[in-house]
Amino acid sequence: MNRHIVIREIDRADPDIIDELAEAGTATVHEAMGRIGFVGPHIRPIQQGAKIAGSAVTVLGHPGDNIMLHAAIELCRPGDVLVVANTAPSTHGMFGDLLATSLLARGVRGLVIDAGVRDTADLRAMGFPVWSQYVSCQGTVKSTPGSVNVPIVMGGITIQPGDVVCADDDGVVIVEREQARTALDGSRSRLDAETAARSRLAAGELGLDFYGLRERLLDLGVEYIDRL
Amino acid sequence: MNRHIVIREIDRADPDIIDELAEAGTATVHEAMGRIGFVGPHIRPIQQGAKIAGSAVTVLGHPGDNIMLHAAIELCRPGDVLVVANTAPSTHGMFGDLLATSLLARGVRGLVIDAGVRDTADLRAMGFPVWSQYVSCQGTVKSTPGSVNVPIVMGGITIQPGDVVCADDDGVVIVEREQARTALDGSRSRLDAETAARSRLAAGELGLDFYGLRERLLDLGVEYIDRL
Amino acid sequence: MNRHIVIREIDRADPDIIDELAEAGTATVHEAMGRIGFVGPHIRPIQQGAKIAGSAVTVLGHPGDNIMLHAAIELCRPGDVLVVANTAPSTHGMFGDLLATSLLARGVRGLVIDAGVRDTADLRAMGFPVWSQYVSCQGTVKSTPGSVNVPIVMGGITIQPGDVVCADDDGVVIVEREQARTALDGSRSRLDAETAARSRLAAGELGLDFYGLRERLLDLGVEYIDRL
Amino acid sequence: MNRHIVIREIDRADPDIIDELAEAGTATVHEAMGRIGFVGPHIRPIQQGAKIAGSAVTVLGHPGDNIMLHAAIELCRPGDVLVVANTAPSTHGMFGDLLATSLLARGVRGLVIDAGVRDTADLRAMGFPVWSQYVSCQGTVKSTPGSVNVPIVMGGITIQPGDVVCADDDGVVIVEREQARTALDGSRSRLDAETAARSRLAAGELGLDFYGLRERLLDLGVEYIDRL
Amino acid sequence: MNRHIVIREIDRADPDIIDELAEAGTATVHEAMGRIGFVGPHIRPIQQGAKIAGSAVTVLGHPGDNIMLHAAIELCRPGDVLVVANTAPSTHGMFGDLLATSLLARGVRGLVIDAGVRDTADLRAMGFPVWSQYVSCQGTVKSTPGSVNVPIVMGGITIQPGDVVCADDDGVVIVEREQARTALDGSRSRLDAETAARSRLAAGELGLDFYGLRERLLDLGVEYIDRL
Amino acid sequence: MNRHIVIREIDRADPDIIDELAEAGTATVHEAMGRIGFVGPHIRPIQQGAKIAGSAVTVLGHPGDNIMLHAAIELCRPGDVLVVANTAPSTHGMFGDLLATSLLARGVRGLVIDAGVRDTADLRAMGFPVWSQYVSCQGTVKSTPGSVNVPIVMGGITIQPGDVVCADDDGVVIVEREQARTALDGSRSRLDAETAARSRLAAGELGLDFYGLRERLLDLGVEYIDRL
Repeated sequence: MNRHIVIREIDRADPDIIDELAEAGTATVHEAMGRIGFVGPHIRPIQQGAKIAGSAVTVLGHPGDNIMLHAAIELCRPGDVLVVANTAPSTHGMFGDLLATSLLARGVRGLVIDAGVRDTADLRAMGFPVWSQYVSCQGTVKSTPGSVNVPIVMGGITIQPGDVVCADDDGVVIVEREQARTALDGSRSRLDAETAARSRLAAGELGLDFYGLRERLLDLGVEYIDRL
Repeated sequence: MNRHIVIREIDRADPDIIDELAEAGTATVHEAMGRIGFVGPHIRPIQQGAKIAGSAVTVLGHPGDNIMLHAAIELCRPGDVLVVANTAPSTHGMFGDLLATSLLARGVRGLVIDAGVRDTADLRAMGFPVWSQYVSCQGTVKSTPGSVNVPIVMGGITIQPGDVVCADDDGVVIVEREQARTALDGSRSRLDAETAARSRLAAGELGLDFYGLRERLLDLGVEYIDRL
Repeated sequence: MNRHIVIREIDRADPDIIDELAEAGTATVHEAMGRIGFVGPHIRPIQQGAKIAGSAVTVLGHPGDNIMLHAAIELCRPGDVLVVANTAPSTHGMFGDLLATSLLARGVRGLVIDAGVRDTADLRAMGFPVWSQYVSCQGTVKSTPGSVNVPIVMGGITIQPGDVVCADDDGVVIVEREQARTALDGSRSRLDAETAARSRLAAGELGLDFYGLRERLLDLGVEYIDRL
Repeated sequence: MNRHIVIREIDRADPDIIDELAEAGTATVHEAMGRIGFVGPHIRPIQQGAKIAGSAVTVLGHPGDNIMLHAAIELCRPGDVLVVANTAPSTHGMFGDLLATSLLARGVRGLVIDAGVRDTADLRAMGFPVWSQYVSCQGTVKSTPGSVNVPIVMGGITIQPGDVVCADDDGVVIVEREQARTALDGSRSRLDAETAARSRLAAGELGLDFYGLRERLLDLGVEYIDRL
Repeated sequence: MNRHIVIREIDRADPDIIDELAEAGTATVHEAMGRIGFVGPHIRPIQQGAKIAGSAVTVLGHPGDNIMLHAAIELCRPGDVLVVANTAPSTHGMFGDLLATSLLARGVRGLVIDAGVRDTADLRAMGFPVWSQYVSCQGTVKSTPGSVNVPIVMGGITIQPGDVVCADDDGVVIVEREQARTALDGSRSRLDAETAARSRLAAGELGLDFYGLRERLLDLGVEYIDRL
Repeated sequence: MNRHIVIREIDRADPDIIDELAEAGTATVHEAMGRIGFVGPHIRPIQQGAKIAGSAVTVLGHPGDNIMLHAAIELCRPGDVLVVANTAPSTHGMFGDLLATSLLARGVRGLVIDAGVRDTADLRAMGFPVWSQYVSCQGTVKSTPGSVNVPIVMGGITIQPGDVVCADDDGVVIVEREQARTALDGSRSRLDAETAARSRLAAGELGLDFYGLRERLLDLGVEYIDRL
């Protein structure tokens, strides 16, 4: 049955791996994992240029109620990312500059939330990065219980507390905690390959040729015609 | 029955109160009023950093037709905000840089519209702030009548002509004209309380403690568990 | 029947006309054509301030598959704009910095796509402008055939290869290739008229008067009332 | 400021007028009022063929919380329609067969709600008609206060308690209480005119001719061409 | 440039072919054409069980204005289907029982519209089938010109006047007029193949085997595992 | 890393419990579990009156590709429900009457899918119940691998193979396999309580009284006012 619980301690991935995943960026990490983990295009940054990774402290709340965000703060450690999902869609501004002040004081690296946030001008000025579904000044009540550090679902992805959250201008990608090193290894390989490809492509070589796609197009039955 | 009317004169709130509400910002004003007045997250700024308040001159138009915006201009006074709703959803770009030129000439502070706007690069360059549902270069006809300075509805909120429109990066909040002073008093109190809270939170104190939420969580049946 | 084809050669409009259409901007061009050609407000720029025009190289792809973008690259020439539609809605990030590197190497001016793009921070840094429906780091497969340089549909508009694509902060407008000169003539007239109107409006004259809208409002049965 | 109140007594329109408005149907009543009052296409019937009108008992609730529906029941009288709006979007199933049992016991004619309902098979079997935005089995809490018999907004329309709610397969139309007789008079005229028109149209006469639209098309600049 | 025109005469496909395409149904015809022509899932029937095909008489209208539907009626012949698109999204109820009375009098088989319709209970009772994006009792004006029998776009598909419109419970599919016979031949083949497959599948044979998909799964790298 | 796998054997809940959960219905089961498990209002039945439960055989597919549905069929047993999610949103009609023929031959009770289905008239005639996000005749390719009987996410809920899927007119609810008995016990209690409440409510007693909500409203600060 459904209980409302707060789990105090969670396992986290190796901080060095997390930092290097941040640097790799979401598109690379997502590809390196075999194209999984993207939470979807509806979760957007409120700022431009932020690029972070951290350990997920998860919150499951009720639409229009942010009491569980308050409960989550003291469980956050430096290097964490707060990740908030709700039991049903919510447009409310569940998070603003005061909660961000608390999180910054604890070394938290950012917020990912499938509802709204407010005080966005302040959040940008404070340098606290946020990825959210909405921007909304509509505040919340503090009346309905939820949970902290339980598995949550966001946009097609299950997120366990302690999973690595990567976020940048392209959105948010989740890496399972146990897969962090694998994701990093894959990301390094991919970055190397991309660097090599980039210089060839810049020189005018065609990916169609060096990826071997010309044959595949023929296999797929694509016909070339000079002119209609 | 439904008539199409233009009301020439409306009552406005005290300009000093309006200016201080602008400064307080939408999140604070919205909370100070008891969490009402937000028009919804679908009305978004086309610029970053604008923060205004003004008296609503209201327009009720027909989708794809902007003749009533033209009618509204001469009724605007310095310090007003033009607020445009339509009788049905519309994605059209009903407003652009020429209308903005007229409004700037009359001292109007901004536009809020539940349809689209265009010439957005020019509008940003001119410093005329706009909150809209869409950006669209699709122009309109001038064939179907509507009304000016009648009550309109935007995103769950009824707006009377003369109501105070507050708008910033978090969206748009409406304060009933008669409630402007009350809203300001509440906003001041809230800003004071937030300033006090902010320094305590920045020092690492927990809102969970000084807002008394720890007990409430227990009352709500939330259980704490050390580790799963 | 539906075949998958790649057309190598297409006709393009006069480059000087294209460049001047870019300068005119989407709102002006759209009006000059009689208010047609806007692909809709769901196709948005990932950057601010870009203002381009070019000849459409069109791609019709399958959701979640970008093999046909690779096929299209070698058909692009300096001054082209790649325009990508899918046979069904897709949120995938079908395009990123490597494809942009190839397109830049060929002198392509930008991308318009009714799906997602990724590496958006890089794309902005590279100065390669993009208009897309989504931002998404979710990558694609290369398994399903499509076509290049066939007519495609985007948001209510049919686009032929070689049509002129105009794109700026207000969105994307398509001008039929054969109509490019007409569109330019109309745009010039409109720009002249707007310049004249702008200075009169800035001086406080009312469009209501010099557009003759006052009589039209009366004809439409709009009543003026001093005060409710 | 925002208080949570329950108003016990409201004024209602003449029951005979209400019943005849039900019979006229939403499309006719809406036209008769000058094309106003439609709450929008997102509020849909869960059944087919119901056609009702009644006096609005209004509820303003919190997303995911149905305590105020319980509060509203004892204020309902025979011939009323319960109309529920929320302070923010909600997909929850806020209403089911038990609340319907209570409402049927009090002679209430139906429910209009901008959230979800559940037990829809039972509601259809009971013959209790419902118009809602969603169908959802997701239940609610009873923790956050709201109001009963205050003005609410639904989809672009302000609804006062006691207004006449007309609902059928085409959706929901609101008639201001004081306008009920006018709406009825207009509806009768329109029904008469439609009956006359219908037989002429059925006989093959063209509305283009007897509505005088042929001239209007010419005035609007529409050209007739035999064949392309 | 954009002119508003009404084309009186259009070419139509062979009526016998059209009737047989109706019988084949949209899913079969769509597959037979190589999976093209579906206008999208947003165009839905207001009734259940209708299954028609006919020649498209096309209308391009303005949001909230149905004057061009009136213009189109006299151009319709027995066996036609009226297909209505708008220059921008519209939720209005642009069509109701009076227009249906006219169309029935002329032998028109149905309506496809990317806006709303009303009088839906009457339309069902009259047996006039409709596929629309919305149901809405909100009526329209008759003020803005459009065109009849010009190419229109609906949901990703370009429709030429005279194209064959197939519509049933699965939605609406367009067959180019010149492709009608090819579509029919393909549909017949497909129906034969499906009949054969259906009896084998009903007997428990696996499509995985007789479509040869088992090998393809292995080629695609899918691994079989007995149990996790 | 992401592999594409097909798991042949899964554990299922007790069939008698499953059957009784079907009878209880989604609203009751969802409440009995503590209001969890609803996949969301976007998954809708294509028929009216079906009420089923079964063991989930899960499919994770690629948008526009149904090869993994074919792979899943031979793993289905009598009493199962096929549950299909995609790695990104898809509107395609991934399922039709031939696949349903196979599933019926294997005793499968229904389909739940977050994409589209087609042949809906046939599916209703066959008595094979379906819950889907879209109806679409647009067919798919068979080119991209996925997985069968892996955990999937649908609308905020994680679904494990073997979980109990309950579906009726109110939507789809998932019960974890290990919680099936608990869910049933809770459902029985709730059904008993509802039966008792229903007769009291039908007799005119107020839930406000016998649920003790009157006091709660006062505690929440709701004020009663006789008349405005």
